[in-house]
Amino acid sequence: MPKPFALPVKQKVDLSTIDPKNTGTFLNKEEVEEETIKLKEEFQELQEKLNAGKNEAVLFVFQGMDCSGKDGVIKHVFSGLNPAGVSSYSFKTPTEEESLHDFLWRAHSKVPALGHITTFNRSYYEDVLITRVHELISDKEAKSRFKHINHFESLLENNHVKVVKIFLHISKEFQLEKLKSRIEDPAKNWKFDPADLMERKSWKKYRNYYEELLEKCSSASPWHVVPADHRWYRDYAVLSIAVESLRKLNLKDPEPIPELMTLLDEIK
Amino acid sequence: MPKPFALPVKQKVDLSTIDPKNTGTFLNKEEVEEETIKLKEEFQELQEKLNAGKNEAVLFVFQGMDCSGKDGVIKHVFSGLNPAGVSSYSFKTPTEEESLHDFLWRAHSKVPALGHITTFNRSYYEDVLITRVHELISDKEAKSRFKHINHFESLLENNHVKVVKIFLHISKEFQLEKLKSRIEDPAKNWKFDPADLMERKSWKKYRNYYEELLEKCSSASPWHVVPADHRWYRDYAVLSIAVESLRKLNLKDPEPIPELMTLLDEIK
Repeated sequence: MPKPFALPVKQKVDLSTIDPKNTGTFLNKEEVEEETIKLKEEFQELQEKLNAGKNEAVLFVFQGMDCSGKDGVIKHVFSGLNPAGVSSYSFKTPTEEESLHDFLWRAHSKVPALGHITTFNRSYYEDVLITRVHELISDKEAKSRFKHINHFESLLENNHVKVVKIFLHISKEFQLEKLKSRIEDPAKNWKFDPADLMERKSWKKYRNYYEELLEKCSSASPWHVVPADHRWYRDYAVLSIAVESLRKLNLKDPEPIPELMTLLDEIK
Repeated sequence: MPKPFALPVKQKVDLSTIDPKNTGTFLNKEEVEEETIKLKEEFQELQEKLNAGKNEAVLFVFQGMDCSGKDGVIKHVFSGLNPAGVSSYSFKTPTEEESLHDFLWRAHSKVPALGHITTFNRSYYEDVLITRVHELISDKEAKSRFKHINHFESLLENNHVKVVKIFLHISKEFQLEKLKSRIEDPAKNWKFDPADLMERKSWKKYRNYYEELLEKCSSASPWHVVPADHRWYRDYAVLSIAVESLRKLNLKDPEPIPELMTLLDEIK
């Protein structure tokens, strides 16, 4: 199932060829409900094995335009996991302390320990996105950062930290609807940030820089592009990718220790 | 002055060709005293500029056999600096939490912020030394780590963090004298660790692995080899290297802001 979402490695990407409204073979939310329940159960079981074994870890990196549903997907897909083994970090404008370090510093400190799952809501990829749109770094510096990102992800992969990168793909119209509803609906006002309107003006630039990083930063771990105009399909797709990435780790059940039986007599 | 200590980059290293008892053109401690005072003053001035500018940082990495004087050199050379801008970390056996992350994780979290100086007493280089002597990692894994170390140091250098690596070079006889004195002198007993006697048995292995890393991990930043059988010369040499590395940054005096003068009248 997740196969169609994984981009081919090191190849030019044209996001306009991928329909953000795509819902695969499904027509509506009801059609994925049963499967979603099954996948959620499997996700929990796999997490328990991951945590017991402590030989692997998974880092989920979520990127996407404003309103693409990064918060929502983390909430809907990762709720239900044992919080003792899952952490979530949201990367905002760097603090003063963070700005005084290399761009990977704050992300490296938050990567999952073996046995854990971590989600990044935005990430070091912002350092080759918003920084380029705002012309804070040169194209040359961006290229150098692509290289450092590939090295960083390969360091993690070598250490058995699987890096699963997901781009939530929305249309410009969808973003407009979302922004409007955040203004019109008083209950959603708190989610509205006037800066989003400014960033929207750079839609095309963001798209180009995204297409470039989706190509250049795919050597250590591939990118997934998830059509996200339909929330139900977005959540279902991400859940499928998440479960499949844990399945692939071939996690073993914790080993029984028969010698423990001899202790039974000694317990008083 | 520090020139003779810097190893040529990416070339085979034979430590037996470097005399640990070498003291350059100097015969005794008295001959370097005056110069040491001058260098210390310059070091302090350079640190102040580094801290005011916040455009560069320096990471000093100290490696060497047991008893090579890593603690001593940090104490003698870096005392006198403003502690607000200098930090020192000593890397021991990894904690459980550290072991559950990649081998560069704990070091990356401790690298200096721009404007700061940091000293590492041992470092990520232990992960290609003691781990090899104790056969915890394969030669293949060591090679992979050399690559990750070079990438990591190049990430730091790209971010204007100068990495200054210093190997304190002692003879096997010198280590013997030191270990004996730690047993015989009650005041030094606290420094004695029986594990050092075990590690001493692997002297040759350590030497070989050191020679390998001095060659393989020199691309992003070169290594310095400091003859360390004479403490006074060791300290003088490290101080020279430290000052020279800050000189090379071409640190500017903080910029005057003439507009501030207009504020003078407003202060009441």
